Parts: sequence; structure tokens; C-alpha cells
Amino acid sequence: MTSSLEHARAMDARDPLRALRDRFILPAGVIYMDGNSLGPLLKAARDRMAHAVEVEWGQGLVRSWNDAGWIGAPQRIGGKIARLIGAASNEVVVADSTSVILFKLLVAALQARRGRKVILTETGNFPTDLYVAQGVAASLPDVEVRAVASADVAAAIDDGVAVVMLTHVHYKTAARHDMAAITARAHAAGALVLWDLSHSAGAVSVNLRADDVDLAVGCGYKFLNGGPGAPAYVFVAERLQQALQSPITGWMGHAAAFAFSDQFEPAEGMPRWLTGTPPMLSLLALEAGVDLHLTVDPSALAAKSRDLWDLFVERLEARCADHGFDLITSRDADRRGSHVSVTHPEGYRIMQALIARGVIGDFRAPDVLRFAVTPLYLGFEDVWRAVEIVAEVMETDAWRALPLLAAGRVT
Amino acid sequence: MTSSLEHARAMDARDPLRALRDRFILPAGVIYMDGNSLGPLLKAARDRMAHAVEVEWGQGLVRSWNDAGWIGAPQRIGGKIARLIGAASNEVVVADSTSVILFKLLVAALQARRGRKVILTETGNFPTDLYVAQGVAASLPDVEVRAVASADVAAAIDDGVAVVMLTHVHYKTAARHDMAAITARAHAAGALVLWDLSHSAGAVSVNLRADDVDLAVGCGYKFLNGGPGAPAYVFVAERLQQALQSPITGWMGHAAAFAFSDQFEPAEGMPRWLTGTPPMLSLLALEAGVDLHLTVDPSALAAKSRDLWDLFVERLEARCADHGFDLITSRDADRRGSHVSVTHPEGYRIMQALIARGVIGDFRAPDVLRFAVTPLYLGFEDVWRAVEIVAEVMETDAWRALPLLAAGRVT
Repeated sequence: MTSSLEHARAMDARDPLRALRDRFILPAGVIYMDGNSLGPLLKAARDRMAHAVEVEWGQGLVRSWNDAGWIGAPQRIGGKIARLIGAASNEVVVADSTSVILFKLLVAALQARRGRKVILTETGNFPTDLYVAQGVAASLPDVEVRAVASADVAAAIDDGVAVVMLTHVHYKTAARHDMAAITARAHAAGALVLWDLSHSAGAVSVNLRADDVDLAVGCGYKFLNGGPGAPAYVFVAERLQQALQSPITGWMGHAAAFAFSDQFEPAEGMPRWLTGTPPMLSLLALEAGVDLHLTVDPSALAAKSRDLWDLFVERLEARCADHGFDLITSRDADRRGSHVSVTHPEGYRIMQALIARGVIGDFRAPDVLRFAVTPLYLGFEDVWRAVEIVAEVMETDAWRALPLLAAGRVT
Repeated sequence: MTSSLEHARAMDARDPLRALRDRFILPAGVIYMDGNSLGPLLKAARDRMAHAVEVEWGQGLVRSWNDAGWIGAPQRIGGKIARLIGAASNEVVVADSTSVILFKLLVAALQARRGRKVILTETGNFPTDLYVAQGVAASLPDVEVRAVASADVAAAIDDGVAVVMLTHVHYKTAARHDMAAITARAHAAGALVLWDLSHSAGAVSVNLRADDVDLAVGCGYKFLNGGPGAPAYVFVAERLQQALQSPITGWMGHAAAFAFSDQFEPAEGMPRWLTGTPPMLSLLALEAGVDLHLTVDPSALAAKSRDLWDLFVERLEARCADHGFDLITSRDADRRGSHVSVTHPEGYRIMQALIARGVIGDFRAPDVLRFAVTPLYLGFEDVWRAVEIVAEVMETDAWRALPLLAAGRVT
């Protein structure tokens, strides 16, 4: 063992982000390593929700669309998220879910690259990305979803490809694509690129403008701590905004929604990507999460994520070398996101045992255990202790008495 | 004047729904007549939100997907809404927004009636219904949106029509279509019918099974009191569920979402209409609104709505006959919804003056003032007093000093 508990504590003592832990509400006895699935509650989000419910809804009623700024919230919050992903404030709005946004962007990309019929993606991409692409292909004539292994994506970009759709950081392995290189390769072939940032924003460095990205989508409820099912965000590069049009043309995307005209006319810029009335309570919870991120130095976040990751893996290898875990996340900090994934044939039951002991990670079928190393609220001692609990669980074997994964259960 | 204030008070005294007013939080000095735009806050919704935020999210964290029943919420709440609209509990789920649901249903209906290319609707339908249909037509080959005047819809249903899409109660005029007759006419011509219940559910009697309806969608934040931007609900008749497929195939609609397979396989029944992770906070607020409705006798609700409507109009005609208002809502209780609409060329400024005096209705361009008569929390004295304030506002002329409607303002 190269690291001691004292060493972990010393790292906490000099952690410039350490004070951020107090912004969160976390249950006693829990080491929360599932922030890549559902970020925890911020005190500010709790207070924002109480205000939104009791004052804005309860007292302001319908007047709050104007008086509390509800009507501008999708653009306002989008503009804030833009700062986290290297976009301009007029390139992002918050709307719908990641899946619905993917549908909009894929259809729009296919229309913008008329004549090209292929959506290129990777096998094992996050399921909803694949499923939505399959739904697009089932709905539009001649569209084809071509899924190839991750390493083969770049070579598979040919002049039949309308759009390359990839997840920047893989949900299962945490593998991180080279966004700049693949985007450049897509552009060279005349294709658009659509990046899913669900496991990136708020966790690893993203710079959409620098990488010349066309389209992006991301999830609000993971590293952004936006609350369960928080709406998604959509990015369209300014240079494409005039040409691209969402197929789902709802009233919130109209140039003048409250003129109530019979004919759709798309709003200028990103508001055309809005569709229906946004779920305001969920939207405002997301804003509280985003606001915290705006106060944090991204390079400090990335550095701490790397150090937490390294400590976790070092400790896991030191304490659990004989317990059958295989690391599937890259050791190269530039090629991974902010979680550690290991496989184990009994992953589900082991994770349930860990959760019962207060170490909350998650399981991804068939055999992956994920542990998010989220720098905003995890400390080095937390990570050190988490691995101690993993070791204890593996040593006692008690997890073998737990039930197997049942159908319909959320993992 | 045939009604006196004493008469209104006597009606309140014998109102069987009177006690429900105490379930709501309404600001002092407000007579809220905009429940057809945003229903007010229930005490139960306030408490449910605090619990959802502080206990389920804050303490339960990601475990709440299983332990707090989040994963089943779209079906659970859908099953409750089903009881309000004469559907079976396995015919409704809550998802997305009304607009996104409209898109899904229209594309599915066109695929189910392959060869037919017309979406038939009425001019002046709620804008998002028209806009979404236009977006579908722009996305799919040869699809045409045919909009005719309300009275001409039935005659326009021919064998080219794939789906007749209508709003049951008109947002502007409160005119109510004969759901059974138009549905039968559509079926006779081989078309499907899609009803938008946004201004119906929770306000007027709806019985989808009795009327043999195929498809329906509705809004959660109006008469159901689900909170700002509450998700929508979608109904597909059981007899069609196997044949119809949403084009937006997200992971929540998969037969086994947590198997994380690469290939979409639709869930059986209504869950296939789910797409992304639902906005849980907004969803749970909606449940509180729906729960209240489940305790109310629908016929008592309809009767009180009718009586409130009659009193409002009688008083308006008695007190404001010379002020230039024209009633555009049917006097036939069976042919209208639960709001009163009048036109006035200065409608916007008059409504702003009313809102400033605590009578909150709304304005729909170019000249409609809407006053919802919502039986759950409005009393007869409220309605009587509201008209007194309308009369006072019109007599003083002070509204003429108010600003005109500015672009971008929510009405």
C-alpha cells in the first residue's frame, strides 16, 4: 500500500474544493459514488424548490411566467450550462429529456445532410442513443443506423454518413472519445457530429467551440446535480442554427408563441428547439445545480477527479486484488470520465451488499460495477473508506446470500 | 339582476364541494379564474414536493427509483388519470409534454393507417396541436395537414384521412366537440381519432371508452393542478396498443430498460410510450393534483361548473352590458368547457387591470378574455365579486393608461 489513511486525510486537508461538500445534503453513513446516475441534493436546490413551490407557484400563480422569469428559464439555464461546455450562451437551451433531444437532433441532421442516410454510432453506446436512432430509422425512409466498435468509428465515417452520434464519456466503461479528432474526421467527410455529454458536463473538460462541434445533448441529473429526471440541454453551433430545424415544432419554439397564429414559424436561434411547456419545478432544481458548477474552477475539478480516481483504483488493487474485479476504465486520465468501472461476474449482488453498507455505486448489466468519483462532495478519506468497505464485503462473502437481479428493478 | 349576493352566498352554503377550497393555497385578495392555464397549489402538492426533495432525493438518493416507487410513477399516475377520463388503468401513462406526445401519436397513427396521408384538424385549434402536425408533415413524405373550420370537420373526414386530431374543449372559445359523434364518423371512414383533452380532464365529463376513442393526450397543469409545466398524459386504446409504436423510442419505453441491450424492443402496453427519464419532481407534483380529483364526484364537479358559469355570465350581462364584451362561449352546458370567454378589442389592457385588482383570468390574442370557473376552489360569491370588479374596472377607465401587450410577454 502506497497510500495510508493519513495520506488520504492530508489530501483532503489541502483540497481546494473541500468546502463544497457543505453545500450538499447527504445522508449520514453514506459514501455516495453514484453521482453519475443521480447527483445528490444541494441545499440551494432544496431552498429553490421550496421557493418555487410556495412562492412562485402558490402565491404568484400564472403571473410567475412573467414575474418569476419562468418563461425565460430554458434559455437562461441553457446559457449557464453553455459556460460549462465551452459554448456561447446563445447556443444552448434546456428542454425535454436527453432521448427526445436526440430524436430532434438526428432528424434535423438527416434533413440538413439530405441524400446521406446513415447515422453512424458505436455498438454498446448508451441504450437510449441507439434506440432513438433506431426509431428515427424506422420513421424516415431509407435511414440506416450503422453501429461499429468504438475503435472503428473514425474509419467508418464515409460520404454516406449524415451524422456521427457518440457519447463522449461511455456510461459503462467511462472511456472518453477524442472529441476534436472525431469531429474533424466527420467534418472532413462532410458529416455532422452529435455528442452526448451526459457523462461529461460537470465532470470532465468539454469545449464544444474549440472542438468545432456541431450538435450536442446532455443530461441534467447526473454530474450537474439537477434532480431526478431533470430536463436535458441541447447545443446547436451558432453557424448551424439557421439551417437546422427540430421536427417537433411545438408552441414554445414559435417565433411568437403568444400570438396564437395557426402557422408554425420557428423562433430565431435556440428557442426553436423548445417544444412544449417545460416542467418548471424540475427545471428550477436543475438551475441550482448548474449555479454551483459556475462557481467552481474546472481545472481544479478535473484534477481532483483524477486524484480521487487514482486513489480509488490504487486502493482497490491493494485491498481487493484477489476478489475477481477487472478494471475496464482507462488509466489514462485524458481518456476517461469521472467514474471507475470494474467487472465482476457477481457484480449485482456485490453492489447490493455495498449499498447496504453505505457505499452507493451502481450496477450495469451484465457485470459492471460503477463508482463515480465526484469531486464536489467526495473526499479522499471517503474514497479510502469506500474501498475498505469493498474489501470487507468481499472478505465476508455475505453478499452471496442476497437475491439475484429481478426483472423491472432499477440498477 | 336576478341574482343577489345573498343568493350567491346561499349557493355556496349548499355547495357539496365547498370544503375542497381548504385543500388549496391561494393568495389573499385573489379570485383565481385562470385554472385553465395553471391550476393553483394544493397543500398536498406542497407537502409532496418537500418530501420528494428532502427525503426521496436528499436521503434516498438513487435508491428512490426502487424504494420510493419513482420507476413506476408514470404508469401509476397514468392509471389514476385514466379513472378521470373513462379509460382503463392500463391505457394511460404520463410522459413528456402535450406537444411531444402529439408528435408521437400523429406519427404512430400515420404509420398505422399507411397509405392515408392526411391529418385532419380544425383551423384555430390550439397552436401547438397545429404546429406539431405541421412538423410531422414537414418530416414525413407526402403527409398533409388539412385544417377546416370546426363545423366542417365531420364532413371533411374522407378515406384519405389517417387521423382526425381535435381538441375536445377549445382553448379560446371553450367550445366542446361532440366526441362520440366525431369519433364514430372518423371510424366509419377508416380514420383514427386523436383527442386533446387539455381543457377537458378535470373539468368536463370525458369517457374515452364509452366514446370508443383511439388516442388522446392531455395537459397536467391546468384543471388537474399538477404544477407549472407538469408532464402530459397519453392514452392509447387497449385494442390499438399492440399495433401502434411511438417513433421516439427511448430507453424508458424498452421492454427491459435495465438489460442495456443494443436493440430497441418495445415494452408491452403503455410503457412503450415512455421515452426518457421522467422529470420526477414535476411528475410527483402532478400526482397530488390527480389524487384530489379522485376524491371528487365528477357529476358534482360538472354541475357546479355549470352553475358557476351561468352565474358569471348572468352577472356579466347584468353589470357590463354596455362595456363592449361579446360572449363567445356556448350557453349550452353540454357544448362548452369550464371557462367563460368574451371578446373585447381592448382585452389585453382590461385583463391587466383585472389582474391588478386580484381577478386573475387571462388574455388570448387578439381579443379574448378568459375566465375559468373551476369548481374545486372557486365559490359563487367569488364569481359574483369577480364580476363586480370587472364592472368597477370598466367604469373607471383606468385600464386605458396601461401599456399595450409587449412582444415576448406571456399572456
